[in-house]
Amino acid sequence: MSETTSRPTIRLQPSRHKRVQHGHPWVYSNEIHMDNLAKAIPPGSVVRVLTHDGAPLGAATFNPHTLFCARMLTRDADAAIDAGFLAERLRSALDLRERLFDRPYYRLIHAEADGLPALIVDRFGDVVVVQANSAGMERLTPDLLEAIDRVLAPSAVVLRNDSPARGQEGLGGEVKVVRGALDGPVRLEENGCVFFADPGVGQKTGWFYDQRDNRAAIAALAAGGRVIDFYSYNGGFAVQCAKAGAASVVAVDRSEAALANGARAAEANGVAAVCGFRRADAFEEMERLAAAGERFDVVIADPPAFVKSKKDLQAGSRAYRKMTRLAASITAPGGFLLVASCSHNVDVPLFAEQVARGLDDARRTGRILRTGGAAADHPVHPHLPETAYLKAQILRLD
Amino acid sequence: MSETTSRPTIRLQPSRHKRVQHGHPWVYSNEIHMDNLAKAIPPGSVVRVLTHDGAPLGAATFNPHTLFCARMLTRDADAAIDAGFLAERLRSALDLRERLFDRPYYRLIHAEADGLPALIVDRFGDVVVVQANSAGMERLTPDLLEAIDRVLAPSAVVLRNDSPARGQEGLGGEVKVVRGALDGPVRLEENGCVFFADPGVGQKTGWFYDQRDNRAAIAALAAGGRVIDFYSYNGGFAVQCAKAGAASVVAVDRSEAALANGARAAEANGVAAVCGFRRADAFEEMERLAAAGERFDVVIADPPAFVKSKKDLQAGSRAYRKMTRLAASITAPGGFLLVASCSHNVDVPLFAEQVARGLDDARRTGRILRTGGAAADHPVHPHLPETAYLKAQILRLD
Repeated sequence: MSETTSRPTIRLQPSRHKRVQHGHPWVYSNEIHMDNLAKAIPPGSVVRVLTHDGAPLGAATFNPHTLFCARMLTRDADAAIDAGFLAERLRSALDLRERLFDRPYYRLIHAEADGLPALIVDRFGDVVVVQANSAGMERLTPDLLEAIDRVLAPSAVVLRNDSPARGQEGLGGEVKVVRGALDGPVRLEENGCVFFADPGVGQKTGWFYDQRDNRAAIAALAAGGRVIDFYSYNGGFAVQCAKAGAASVVAVDRSEAALANGARAAEANGVAAVCGFRRADAFEEMERLAAAGERFDVVIADPPAFVKSKKDLQAGSRAYRKMTRLAASITAPGGFLLVASCSHNVDVPLFAEQVARGLDDARRTGRILRTGGAAADHPVHPHLPETAYLKAQILRLD
Repeated sequence: MSETTSRPTIRLQPSRHKRVQHGHPWVYSNEIHMDNLAKAIPPGSVVRVLTHDGAPLGAATFNPHTLFCARMLTRDADAAIDAGFLAERLRSALDLRERLFDRPYYRLIHAEADGLPALIVDRFGDVVVVQANSAGMERLTPDLLEAIDRVLAPSAVVLRNDSPARGQEGLGGEVKVVRGALDGPVRLEENGCVFFADPGVGQKTGWFYDQRDNRAAIAALAAGGRVIDFYSYNGGFAVQCAKAGAASVVAVDRSEAALANGARAAEANGVAAVCGFRRADAFEEMERLAAAGERFDVVIADPPAFVKSKKDLQAGSRAYRKMTRLAASITAPGGFLLVASCSHNVDVPLFAEQVARGLDDARRTGRILRTGGAAADHPVHPHLPETAYLKAQILRLD
């Protein structure tokens, strides 16, 4: 008996097949016949998805215990979901990245938009970092590792399976090197600069490729100016501004290890002489600088998500307002301010409102020059526009 | 008696001053005491704006016959609004553009966000095109022309006062050269290419600088490919794709004059050999090409606004869906599709929904690589996020 003939089946409620038929990649748990058979399907299984009337809609990974219980993999309900299938998706994603970028440093798989729901793969040259955010991707991981070997033959692969999303899927957290070995930070390139990241211990996969375009945009305004970069992490914004000709750059972060990566990047790009690295809490440092009357020509504030769940929405939104107020208060007249949010729950209008209020609180006026999202290696599925989580505004203040 | 002591006054309804106090640039007609005195103020006058209690909020242009009856100019209710004031705003805007761009081709004034409500000024080197979209800016035009002389000393100035917005302000339409002379199309540069535009007779001011970044983004994906550019106008997308190394480019437009400007640009950029210019209706040409089985590696569709007013919303939205369906149907597998909308009334989510539906109608899948807005010389006032009218999606199709 082949894998596909033994594949379990889920059946949708009457007329609930239309969204999937139109290309949406998710089935919600209240849209299927959640009978005892369905409930007994092991979490992470690949299933055949049928309409109420039994017509095949496609194959999906399935987890009966989650809201997005089925995540569509293909419209062919009987397609083999194996290393070959996964390698084909990887090759398609790789082909796109090679069109977008000259160098092998990018997000290779951005989940649903790259046809592999809930899977993240970041590439740092020969080092690949994988995050499986669903029970389905967890079960497919052995096949995925084989597919990655076939397509990329990396020297090292890190499973960075410690995201909060895994908890909702009933998965534990673990970080391990499953191919080769990691010996300290990995090297990467972005916008013509060299950086260092810790895929094993840093935030997320160790580097935020999503800010690539926003870093280039603010760096283009930094020449000759005094720059300060809050939540600098591994120095992405700071070093790119320095490389673009900033007179001086201060990188602020609470993590000694991240600042050390930033300092190493400044060295590697020949800009250590203009870069300072300061260990501090961002809000406290902003308040201290404001009180001291310090002003900068470029102020960057790209914090971790202030709103981690819907219940944090009000308090977290206020944090963006406060951040904008404090950052604006140390921005020189005529200076540029970049404020960002990676909170999924804060949409573009809400973020814009908080920024506008923060400006008013600081009694500053200005104009938005750019509202940027994540770079093109973080594509968005056309039916999931709400997954475009990154928002970065660049303003010029009066 | 000086101009400011004779300046008329409008008074807001109780507690209606807060929005303006927080930086919003508009007062709505139902928010003021619209008594006979206010109604008698000549449309376009500069007025002092007071709270209900008589505290000064600032100076504004005023038109008692419009919904946005007062448009704030400054928080100083008694500031002189003259050529000196306008020159200062122009200098500030010029300073920003000179930070943004190497060459003098850009939108210099983008209305409220540049501190000059309802005013558009586009610059083509020594030629300046002005559009006054309110009675206030109409009355200030003599001072504005003096200010433009002081700041830019252009060889020619065109008043391009034929926008529909002027009708709502009770203003007539006229196009005239008020300084120097225009002798055929003007020359401009964008993203390293040379173009030609007709400020006196073309659409809007003759050129759409707003698409600058989106043109660069799709051109970066065009190398080696077959490209087709619908609603090509003066060839902005088409010629930039050719210059970036496209194997062949077809520019489609209904205007013979626009196509001639495009062909001249192709010649000037040394890419005439790979560019074809075709006079046709975009939808008809898409249908013809689809029926003929023609496929392109890059398809661009940047139409004029399909939704010109709220009553057109449903029919116009469907037009974006149809456009996406037809454009997708001639996009090769693995190809790139750029679809844009400049309709103010179609917001980002609505546009994204129409694009997703159009893809489904064409039975195509893909991913959004970029959702771009207008370039940085079209800044957005922080309190008017809804004025960010341009939306351009770049997708890669499977």
